Amino acid sequence: MQSAHTSAHEARHAVTDHPIHPLLGERWSPRAFAGRAVEADKLRALLEAARWAPSSANGQPWHFLIGVQGSSTHERLAGVLKESNRTWAARAPVLLLAVARSTTRSGHPSAHAFYDVGLAVANLTVQATALELYVHQMAGFFPDRAREEFAIPEEYSPVTVLAIGYLGDPEQLDAQQQERERAPRQRRLLAEFVFEGSWGQPAQLVSPGEER
Amino acid sequence: MQSAHTSAHEARHAVTDHPIHPLLGERWSPRAFAGRAVEADKLRALLEAARWAPSSANGQPWHFLIGVQGSSTHERLAGVLKESNRTWAARAPVLLLAVARSTTRSGHPSAHAFYDVGLAVANLTVQATALELYVHQMAGFFPDRAREEFAIPEEYSPVTVLAIGYLGDPEQLDAQQQERERAPRQRRLLAEFVFEGSWGQPAQLVSPGEER
Repeated sequence: MQSAHTSAHEARHAVTDHPIHPLLGERWSPRAFAGRAVEADKLRALLEAARWAPSSANGQPWHFLIGVQGSSTHERLAGVLKESNRTWAARAPVLLLAVARSTTRSGHPSAHAFYDVGLAVANLTVQATALELYVHQMAGFFPDRAREEFAIPEEYSPVTVLAIGYLGDPEQLDAQQQERERAPRQRRLLAEFVFEGSWGQPAQLVSPGEER
Repeated sequence: MQSAHTSAHEARHAVTDHPIHPLLGERWSPRAFAGRAVEADKLRALLEAARWAPSSANGQPWHFLIGVQGSSTHERLAGVLKESNRTWAARAPVLLLAVARSTTRSGHPSAHAFYDVGLAVANLTVQATALELYVHQMAGFFPDRAREEFAIPEEYSPVTVLAIGYLGDPEQLDAQQQERERAPRQRRLLAEFVFEGSWGQPAQLVSPGEER
């Protein structure tokens, strides 16, 4: 049971049913970021981690537009966020727009472009956690505004905006955001999405009687 | 420079321009898997790692069909692979089909379903690396055959098949596969996909003069 007095720090770790690596269990998407700038070498490490993700036919469809606090790119990226995100995310020291090349080299639509960008951003997020940085992804932005603002060509698709930084004090957030910041984290059970034999049939590996 | 005598073992680590965490740098997609079975508790850890990925509105659109070597599900998953993958992947001790729920809870098409499955599979892959396991993803399979074989409902989309296991001896592969197994790994430079200001303008952070 979660106590009503659980601190934000305790609440942010995943409460797992099976042990996982700390770099995955400690990952968490905060809204309260510290004002502290992110060091350039750490940002390069994050981007390098994304670079080494696998992708379909090694197509590497990922692209990034980076804005560091104080730059016009940061301000313009904050401007394409939905209001509910902009209120907290504009304070993040780094904003990063992830963009997929949505056609293959031969010009056909790529079914896996968004998927591959997901692989790259997850790698980036693991590297962030290893450097004590936090990442909060937002689907809540206006892709068409981003395309116009940064002259993104037609064959590329804006996917998500990432807020990146060190963890800050939740007291900087409004009341509703503070509540969300401290809410218990929840996931479906493995038996609800790991199947064998046919669709919807839980794999024996994750059936309740087998789990421990 | 890569030597012509670089062993498969040396070749599989990423040759990075900036240091990244070993769990990311040591990840690699082999074709030669050992016959050794993967322990059930390790498989649960892999799936648990996927479970704790972030997703748009915490929608968790990922689903998996798992087949362990010797099971009919493994045989049927091998059967939906393209021939060029089946020759080596049928020997992998575990095959896993990743499936996205491609509509939101309210029934609308989900733009981020494949992306979120990418986040989950990347988490799974990090956990695999932490347990000395290797993952090789394949877009080269027949989604329609998979749908029919496992009675996957219309609102779900097969995304990728993963081969999972311990590293094996490349000598088990045919000549062409051995060559691919030992080829140097390559990626685009950061300056080719990290921009600021506007599309196509390399970020100063990753411009050649700034990088070190």
